[in-house]
Amino acid sequence: MPRYKLTVEYDGKPFVGWQKQKNGLSIQESIEDAACAFSGEKTNVYGAGRTDSGVHATGQVCHLDFQKSYDVAVIQSAINAHLRPATISILSVHATNDNFDSRRDAKARTYRYKIINRRAPLAIESGRAWWCPVSLNSKKMENATPYLLGQHDFSTFRAKECQAASPIKTLDLLTVEHFQDEIIITTKARSFLHKQVRNIVGALYLVGKGSWTEKNLKTALESKNRQEGGPTAPPDGLYLTKVDY
Amino acid sequence: MPRYKLTVEYDGKPFVGWQKQKNGLSIQESIEDAACAFSGEKTNVYGAGRTDSGVHATGQVCHLDFQKSYDVAVIQSAINAHLRPATISILSVHATNDNFDSRRDAKARTYRYKIINRRAPLAIESGRAWWCPVSLNSKKMENATPYLLGQHDFSTFRAKECQAASPIKTLDLLTVEHFQDEIIITTKARSFLHKQVRNIVGALYLVGKGSWTEKNLKTALESKNRQEGGPTAPPDGLYLTKVDY
Repeated sequence: MPRYKLTVEYDGKPFVGWQKQKNGLSIQESIEDAACAFSGEKTNVYGAGRTDSGVHATGQVCHLDFQKSYDVAVIQSAINAHLRPATISILSVHATNDNFDSRRDAKARTYRYKIINRRAPLAIESGRAWWCPVSLNSKKMENATPYLLGQHDFSTFRAKECQAASPIKTLDLLTVEHFQDEIIITTKARSFLHKQVRNIVGALYLVGKGSWTEKNLKTALESKNRQEGGPTAPPDGLYLTKVDY
Repeated sequence: MPRYKLTVEYDGKPFVGWQKQKNGLSIQESIEDAACAFSGEKTNVYGAGRTDSGVHATGQVCHLDFQKSYDVAVIQSAINAHLRPATISILSVHATNDNFDSRRDAKARTYRYKIINRRAPLAIESGRAWWCPVSLNSKKMENATPYLLGQHDFSTFRAKECQAASPIKTLDLLTVEHFQDEIIITTKARSFLHKQVRNIVGALYLVGKGSWTEKNLKTALESKNRQEGGPTAPPDGLYLTKVDY
């Protein structure tokens, strides 16, 4: 059966998350319904990253099979038309070989986290960034990143519900950039533990506001204990931006 | 009576526009209600720019009077608290002299218009940019701007309902910038005619997609006839970004 790779953008606010669930509408189910409305066949959509409720994407990747071949531009237009008015958009469609698996074949995932650090609440970026009214020192946050880079046991930053076989992961990238009142944290790894990025952002937030030193972050990581890890940053600021193959 | 100058950000999508109207909730009325909930007094709020329904602001300026003096940080926090969950945020508050008038004293207004030029519909920026699926040549749009810069009779780009005394306005700035799939048009003038920015963007769009040459734009301007001016760009992409005093 012809298999297609889709790159997807979404505002995650109205959804229960990527993954199909009984308690509400997911992004996965929305795309499956739109694909079915187009082709008349029921098809399963498999994504590279299971983003949580409220988490966004500018570069999620998924794959699906159709019984017959279609022009990729037709697939893109048709699924997008059937998705409306959902805040989901198919950015591109490529025909792939039958063995391609968006999840298993992913070599790296990149996430971006957006903090807006100002006194005034968010109006335009409401739901699409984390509003932090307490002043954050982004230089201190940046200086703390080397403690988390590379291979570690990330149990401290792992959600209770995480189903990964091992807590050992390797961060290939972790940067903190500051533009006016925005602080952007970018991280890349082959794969992440459940809520790992939001938990790391929560810990960097403690460093930024001066509650933690870099040393505290190191101690927290070494404790391998979620209780020592600081808060979980809200989903609002998190974007899955890229999946590499 | 103590007078205060407020700088305001808003997502204009849910509102009938800046100006109070009988047919729905305006930004002006929302701020007046929040100010009254804080101070217990009815007060009028006067804005520098009467943005239309769906138009946004990152730097609208307005003024209001209270019967007594308050700390500016208290005014900001209290009005913002009472505004929730409206997509309006008071960015700053300054005490001014009694003669300050946000509208009359404005020396210049700056607007930014955001086009996203790509095949895929907007998910994350839906309602906050103009989605143009037809390929636009931003270089051609940029090359056409000198015809509109400076002082002209802008009747071609003036809405029927415009109440300005004269159609003659002076554009001090009109730029077109291209970043990846975003085209940003920025313009600045002492004041603008009703829908002038959106009508100019509509004309530049015709130039960008090749329906008009620069010469067509010049002819349209010289016709002083709205019928010759091309389409009106949607409110979604328009932001009032700055008011100078």
